[in-house]
Amino acid sequence: MGNGDYAYPSSMNVESVHRVAIPPHQPFFESLKYSVKETLFPDDPLRKFKNQPASRRFVLALQHFLPILEWAPQYTLQFLKSDLIAGITIASLAIPQGISYAKLANLPPILGLYSSFIPPLVYAMMGSSRDLAVGTVAVGSLLMASMLGREVNPIENPKLFLHLAFTATFFAGALQLSLGLFRLGFIVDFLSHAAIVGFMGGAATVVCLQQLKSILGLEHFTHQADLVSVMRSVFTQTREWRWESAVLGCCFIFFLLVTRYFSKRQPRFFWVSAMAPLTSVILGSILVYLTHAEKHGVQVIGELKKGLNPPSATDLVFVSPYIGTAIKTGLITGIIALAEGIAVGRSFAMFKNYHIDGNKEMIAIGTMNIFGSLTSCYLTTGPFSRSAVNYNAGCKTAASNIVMAIAVMLTLLFLTPLFHYTPLVVLAAIIVSAMLGLIDYEAAIHLWKIDKFDFLVCFSAYFGVVFGSVEIGLIIAVAISVLRVLLFVARPRTFVLGNIPNSGAYRNVEHYQNAHHVPGILILEIDAPIFFANASYLRERITRWINEEEERIEGAGKTSLQYVIMDMTAVANIDTSGISMLEEFKKTVDRKGLQLVMVNPGSEVTKKLNKSKFLDEIGHKWVYVTVEEAVGVCSFMLGTHKANHMKDESEGLNSV
Amino acid sequence: MGNGDYAYPSSMNVESVHRVAIPPHQPFFESLKYSVKETLFPDDPLRKFKNQPASRRFVLALQHFLPILEWAPQYTLQFLKSDLIAGITIASLAIPQGISYAKLANLPPILGLYSSFIPPLVYAMMGSSRDLAVGTVAVGSLLMASMLGREVNPIENPKLFLHLAFTATFFAGALQLSLGLFRLGFIVDFLSHAAIVGFMGGAATVVCLQQLKSILGLEHFTHQADLVSVMRSVFTQTREWRWESAVLGCCFIFFLLVTRYFSKRQPRFFWVSAMAPLTSVILGSILVYLTHAEKHGVQVIGELKKGLNPPSATDLVFVSPYIGTAIKTGLITGIIALAEGIAVGRSFAMFKNYHIDGNKEMIAIGTMNIFGSLTSCYLTTGPFSRSAVNYNAGCKTAASNIVMAIAVMLTLLFLTPLFHYTPLVVLAAIIVSAMLGLIDYEAAIHLWKIDKFDFLVCFSAYFGVVFGSVEIGLIIAVAISVLRVLLFVARPRTFVLGNIPNSGAYRNVEHYQNAHHVPGILILEIDAPIFFANASYLRERITRWINEEEERIEGAGKTSLQYVIMDMTAVANIDTSGISMLEEFKKTVDRKGLQLVMVNPGSEVTKKLNKSKFLDEIGHKWVYVTVEEAVGVCSFMLGTHKANHMKDESEGLNSV
Repeated sequence: MGNGDYAYPSSMNVESVHRVAIPPHQPFFESLKYSVKETLFPDDPLRKFKNQPASRRFVLALQHFLPILEWAPQYTLQFLKSDLIAGITIASLAIPQGISYAKLANLPPILGLYSSFIPPLVYAMMGSSRDLAVGTVAVGSLLMASMLGREVNPIENPKLFLHLAFTATFFAGALQLSLGLFRLGFIVDFLSHAAIVGFMGGAATVVCLQQLKSILGLEHFTHQADLVSVMRSVFTQTREWRWESAVLGCCFIFFLLVTRYFSKRQPRFFWVSAMAPLTSVILGSILVYLTHAEKHGVQVIGELKKGLNPPSATDLVFVSPYIGTAIKTGLITGIIALAEGIAVGRSFAMFKNYHIDGNKEMIAIGTMNIFGSLTSCYLTTGPFSRSAVNYNAGCKTAASNIVMAIAVMLTLLFLTPLFHYTPLVVLAAIIVSAMLGLIDYEAAIHLWKIDKFDFLVCFSAYFGVVFGSVEIGLIIAVAISVLRVLLFVARPRTFVLGNIPNSGAYRNVEHYQNAHHVPGILILEIDAPIFFANASYLRERITRWINEEEERIEGAGKTSLQYVIMDMTAVANIDTSGISMLEEFKKTVDRKGLQLVMVNPGSEVTKKLNKSKFLDEIGHKWVYVTVEEAVGVCSFMLGTHKANHMKDESEGLNSV
Repeated sequence: MGNGDYAYPSSMNVESVHRVAIPPHQPFFESLKYSVKETLFPDDPLRKFKNQPASRRFVLALQHFLPILEWAPQYTLQFLKSDLIAGITIASLAIPQGISYAKLANLPPILGLYSSFIPPLVYAMMGSSRDLAVGTVAVGSLLMASMLGREVNPIENPKLFLHLAFTATFFAGALQLSLGLFRLGFIVDFLSHAAIVGFMGGAATVVCLQQLKSILGLEHFTHQADLVSVMRSVFTQTREWRWESAVLGCCFIFFLLVTRYFSKRQPRFFWVSAMAPLTSVILGSILVYLTHAEKHGVQVIGELKKGLNPPSATDLVFVSPYIGTAIKTGLITGIIALAEGIAVGRSFAMFKNYHIDGNKEMIAIGTMNIFGSLTSCYLTTGPFSRSAVNYNAGCKTAASNIVMAIAVMLTLLFLTPLFHYTPLVVLAAIIVSAMLGLIDYEAAIHLWKIDKFDFLVCFSAYFGVVFGSVEIGLIIAVAISVLRVLLFVARPRTFVLGNIPNSGAYRNVEHYQNAHHVPGILILEIDAPIFFANASYLRERITRWINEEEERIEGAGKTSLQYVIMDMTAVANIDTSGISMLEEFKKTVDRKGLQLVMVNPGSEVTKKLNKSKFLDEIGHKWVYVTVEEAVGVCSFMLGTHKANHMKDESEGLNSV
């Protein structure tokens, strides 16, 4: 066609056409610095240090790592009153929950109390959330039991198992700390909300199933956690079921669920559900003590050693063959715990309208787990249930954690004998009632309605956990989520744009029913960066758009296609495979006698297309800032062309 | 601020404001069908079957799987002449190359000839490329030797090694065939061009290093392929070096490189470089025969068995422990071979302007390898060097492969004894000269200039292969490429847009130096889909943009910020995490007293935002089709607001 050879006629105001600027050259190291900064420091944490004297900078740095220095000076008596109430409330929840979760992790029950003493103190100094209540979590406990249990049998070799638990906690803390220090918090983002919903639901289901052991009073139970194994284990020994235990368990579950339901309906009675677990423990213990039910098949906790956390630094196991298992367990449980802690912290910060820094939180949680591993604690984070109670109880600062720690300390020093007669079935009931709240079927339905792919992720995570194992569920969920991102890039959408009447806007004709095609011009929009992963797909797809358009025109007998306009607005980046694709595509278009026009390439794309000489190849005059201008020029050319053509024809007629 | 409460004043033409359409509802299965079609059938392969009678459909289907039925009826004597010349030329290259590569794979040399007989015949019937010349490849051979060599020693147990090679070839073929049948060809796209450049260069370097054994005439040599091991192996036995062998080797390498250089300069003498390997073999064999150099440390091929391919179906090993290795080797070599074959086919199709179908090619290559594995052949694909010679020799159709196969068949039947005295050093020279062409340093420099990240991929692949192993290089390259895609989604760019003077266009102010801010309004563009992986980053980054803008305004004492416009043009999709992020962001903006305005959400995004009630939340009137209209309304409101404000003030003054 050689449309490029036409000069702009004087009647057209060339000045009014805007040119795509070629961005100023940036030296390599400067652009690298910029990229690294945007990737690792999106929140620009050093901003507040700017233009400050050195002494002030030191104070700011200290406050950065120990937020307690920031809020403690402004602490008031009013705050103390609120934190005291909140702290005592969460302690009453933390004590029975701690014991229950330690049992779930196949660890001595006392560890649950130890873990509610030191880590909250560390977090109170370093954490930036005001609402997070620190403690052990059910999913982390279960995960630890199942992963370490594959290497060491907790019943045959409880000491080694315990030491491995400390070691895994140490590695979990080290991972969390280093993620925070190296500002790699975005790794946690790859656990999508949908994956967490499914994963948590699955884990809660599995944890509930495990409680069948205590509720039915079974002596032997499978070490597997999946649905099939548990069901087989339960139904092959129906003769061993203890009705006393089962009745007691069901009563307590009912009591706990009713109190929770009541507190949910009447938020000011939040303390009813917060106190219910402790009440159950007291009731259960008294009942057993009075009836001597421990001699009739109702298992009890037994003796708990008095005294504070013994040091455990020398217990860490850094020798093969165990270190591999410890590291693997630490990494997986660390990531899961981090995801829960940060998500919980963020939600409550949202409610109260303050900001928490993800990387700072990671450092706090990591440090608290490292300290914990040296003082006989196992994996802790900020569990949702406990933090919600803390929030509802009106906590003002992280001091509520200190109050809780003191309450737990007093328990450790003086009250442990009281738990001797606490029946295990009560602990099981506490776990079950907490877990049922984690199965968030409403969220799953919401996912189905809004985004089918997210539902798929959630669904697979759930079933992976329930029928496989916690890790399988986790891996499936992350794999599907990542696959979705890759698929998005591998198969971007391409659209034909049409003019919206009475405007200069060109939009997707499938989306806007009133948008109409411009005769002789095909306008395409690509909705993703052009990368190696989609380059050959895009070439095929765009070529098909052109072929289909030509067929359509041929069928309708309209103006033949002469211009292909590519709207690059949504093409955020391009790599060398993408540029090769465009070069090949340009050749295809040339052979068809069409003119390729490019609109609004972004700064990165313009830079690269300019460096690779592609802009020279299509001609700088065929690159426009807006679709409107490109269409204007093309339509004008089409008009000229047609006019010339008609003139030629009429001249031909005249010469006859 | 409650700007949303203002009614449009009558002076403003509300009719002229365009509304974002909510796309028509699509039933779930219809949209699923559409997605699957776009993902797996972007080329719409069934289009040609539409509106055809059944008999015609049958013919078309046959032709689809056997393209020979399409071109054979139009075959002319002219074509035959061209294909005959091309076929004989590539046969003269295929015979020495085949023997060399089989040696490289630690397989009997005769296998190289077998593999140039059956697979080309299969490909000639099924392949859609007219230029691909089928045969074994150096990288595939090396990979097979190193991967299978880890399980079975080829010198101690040559029979089992051979059978494993057949089995691996079978699995490679099965993988290729199923990728084609299930239309999963895009998996190959994840090997980016940059990765392939680095990977091929690294493999070529490693292959060259391996040839030091033959060139220096060493008896013992490391089984490792990495640079360090090879160098150690070479320099610890300097006393074993054979100068006769080394001199011969260097002479032949020089001869081959000179002929190649000459042919490159003078394309019509392409046959000079094509014939050079065979000439070298003949010269070398005569030299050895005359001087009896085989008795003076120059190793020769020895006896080659006469006769065509024996069947090998019963040799396939499907028992553990070997099947695992065979499957792994098959998968990796299969993918690599596929990537090379398809890339080569595509490039030549580009030159000659015809279309090849990637999925069809996979089916052809897969079938040819399955057939090959049953007839004593090992992994074949379309090597670049041979196909280039084929193209230069003027081949017209895949019939040149048939000619080559017949030539190889005649060699197998009658000429094998002639290779008895062929010195191994000549084969090494042939491999080295072919490999030096694969080290494409110019492409690497090009990558550095255009795209640093692509260079990183290329560089890592190269060093991974040279210092680690072929698989390590491959895994690193793919991992970095995928990481890039994930990083792109995890850390999208966000821009502030400004108005380009004398136009309604709003563009990135960093890219267009003349674009200027609109007072009181911040216009942001997000350059990626809003997914779980970037949701929290985007929240932080956008909040920072607002804070920075507020600081800037405060410093300059200009109109305070009142509107935040988000241009969603480049946001191709959103998931539930992204929607939650927007909801949270809306709350943050509300608290700051700003009005959130959304511009041009795409159809997918509009659908999901509508379903999740987010559009209701920000108000449908705050969603516009173009930035221009949104700015128009906001500026108008600002004006009204200011006017009202001034009126209030003046009224206040009056009332004093």
